[in-house]
Amino acid sequence: MNPESFSFLYERERKKVEKILVEAFKDRKPDSLYKPVKYILSTGGKRLRPLLVIFSTKAVGGNFSVVYNASVAVELLHNFTLVHDDIMDNADKRRGMLTLHKKYDDSTAILAGDGLLSVAYEYLLKDCNGKTKEVISAFTKGLIEVCEGQSLDKDFETTDNVTIDKYKLMIMKKTAAMFEMCCTVGALLGGGSPKEIKAVSLFGKNIGIAFQIQDDLLDISGDEKKFGKKVGGDLIEGKKTFLFIKALSKAKGNDKKKLIKVIKNNGIKPQKVNMYKHLYEKLGVIENAKAEIKFYTNRALRSLKTLKKEDDKEIFSWLANSLIKRIK
Amino acid sequence: MNPESFSFLYERERKKVEKILVEAFKDRKPDSLYKPVKYILSTGGKRLRPLLVIFSTKAVGGNFSVVYNASVAVELLHNFTLVHDDIMDNADKRRGMLTLHKKYDDSTAILAGDGLLSVAYEYLLKDCNGKTKEVISAFTKGLIEVCEGQSLDKDFETTDNVTIDKYKLMIMKKTAAMFEMCCTVGALLGGGSPKEIKAVSLFGKNIGIAFQIQDDLLDISGDEKKFGKKVGGDLIEGKKTFLFIKALSKAKGNDKKKLIKVIKNNGIKPQKVNMYKHLYEKLGVIENAKAEIKFYTNRALRSLKTLKKEDDKEIFSWLANSLIKRIK
Repeated sequence: MNPESFSFLYERERKKVEKILVEAFKDRKPDSLYKPVKYILSTGGKRLRPLLVIFSTKAVGGNFSVVYNASVAVELLHNFTLVHDDIMDNADKRRGMLTLHKKYDDSTAILAGDGLLSVAYEYLLKDCNGKTKEVISAFTKGLIEVCEGQSLDKDFETTDNVTIDKYKLMIMKKTAAMFEMCCTVGALLGGGSPKEIKAVSLFGKNIGIAFQIQDDLLDISGDEKKFGKKVGGDLIEGKKTFLFIKALSKAKGNDKKKLIKVIKNNGIKPQKVNMYKHLYEKLGVIENAKAEIKFYTNRALRSLKTLKKEDDKEIFSWLANSLIKRIK
Repeated sequence: MNPESFSFLYERERKKVEKILVEAFKDRKPDSLYKPVKYILSTGGKRLRPLLVIFSTKAVGGNFSVVYNASVAVELLHNFTLVHDDIMDNADKRRGMLTLHKKYDDSTAILAGDGLLSVAYEYLLKDCNGKTKEVISAFTKGLIEVCEGQSLDKDFETTDNVTIDKYKLMIMKKTAAMFEMCCTVGALLGGGSPKEIKAVSLFGKNIGIAFQIQDDLLDISGDEKKFGKKVGGDLIEGKKTFLFIKALSKAKGNDKKKLIKVIKNNGIKPQKVNMYKHLYEKLGVIENAKAEIKFYTNRALRSLKTLKKEDDKEIFSWLANSLIKRIK
């Protein structure tokens, strides 16, 4: 298959997921709970996680149609995390639109998040068939890790000496565990062998790590309009990203002082973003991030060796490459 | 069995639940997530919902030991709702101690609630055995209803014309659905027949309605020290409880004006609680509430006709009576 065919496939399946997402909340009441839920789902997004479920099912020889509800479930779980995280981070914008708690209020957003998670389990159950225990276990494990990861991320706000190791543990839990779970659920429901499930799950985990470092990178190198968030937002908020931690570990003298200032002041002024971007370039941490992304992407692809069909590997390769090249 | 034996049984089983609740979070990290979770669990509570699971298992001929993890799961779910509800209600105290978001902050409490819910599913899965789909479905249905009920309750804050019917729908979802779920899960795991499961679930639903009206009643007639919350708190906050809605529907002239004032001012001053208590007495709504509690308690007990063993009915009768006589 050529890249265009993969894009076509992604888009076709994404639209199906989109349709079920809309149907899932069409007739639910009360509006005070579900209108905000519909709002956050209408803000779009790549729907990457559901597609990971779908492709993982395909990769082990299963049929797309057996995992649409499960793929909707992971998207709902993902949106639950976004809604609650945005309250905690006091974020104004998400996907270029107002965050839920800014459009409504904190209480509405807390409850909408809870509702999203609840309905996620309802949808997951629809596709579980004979594998309810394994699938719900994998999903719940992913959920617990996401909560732990978010807690670690919040800890970083008040920790001065965050190391790359601590950072990796955090993103492993906050981001990669969910990618891994999507692939596990897809492979389980697709009827994969234990070996295949393991291979596909490892793909998810490693691509998840690459994805998060890429996200950190996009924050400083992305195009504001396409990215949907303010460029340099992580620096403005003083977030300990891969780039920042790496820069701090490499910098000396005056450069180091500048970086310590970011920690001390809990962030920087927007007009200073460019100065720090140049510092990142000078210290080579943008290149470091790119190398790291490549490393985890390759590791992800290597884990797929056990898959039999070339087509299945190809779809994941295309996905991995699309993620590296993504602009938002 | 005599009432003392039932109290002994309740206490013995409650302690076992308590022990598992502590063990469940002993070795989890990070502390930033699980210390707040342990705090809220350490504030105690009646552990009524886990005991409902345990007694329901017993009532259909099952063994206590097969549902300890499931009973811990419902208590975790219950605490998840308390933690999130307390943020939304901006409540200061719970069980006589600081609420989680007051002891820490909103973000910590949001995440602790999420963590409680996640681990609830983990614990539920431990006991599911061959009934994972039914049990997880019942639990998830209960969870969704709790979210919807909380949303309806929040709607009441800005609705002037709340009727007793709307109130009952709200408590059916916010409180009774969870009681029903506890009984369903217990009866399912205890190996009950469909008829038995139905009977025990109906007991839970109706006792849940009685429990919530009793809660509204305790708010005005309870002893502050034993109740753990400020007496008249619902009036102070302008909550539309059974008593308030009933009073508003019965009052005329000056009495009605006084009640409308509560709505207009979003509550009353603490020193006016006694005046409103006398008004409730004058209008007979305290007696109305007591009659309603009796009605639903009797309905709950009647649903148990299909249970074979007298002992099993007795334990539920004792529980129902304890709930009516409770002071907190």
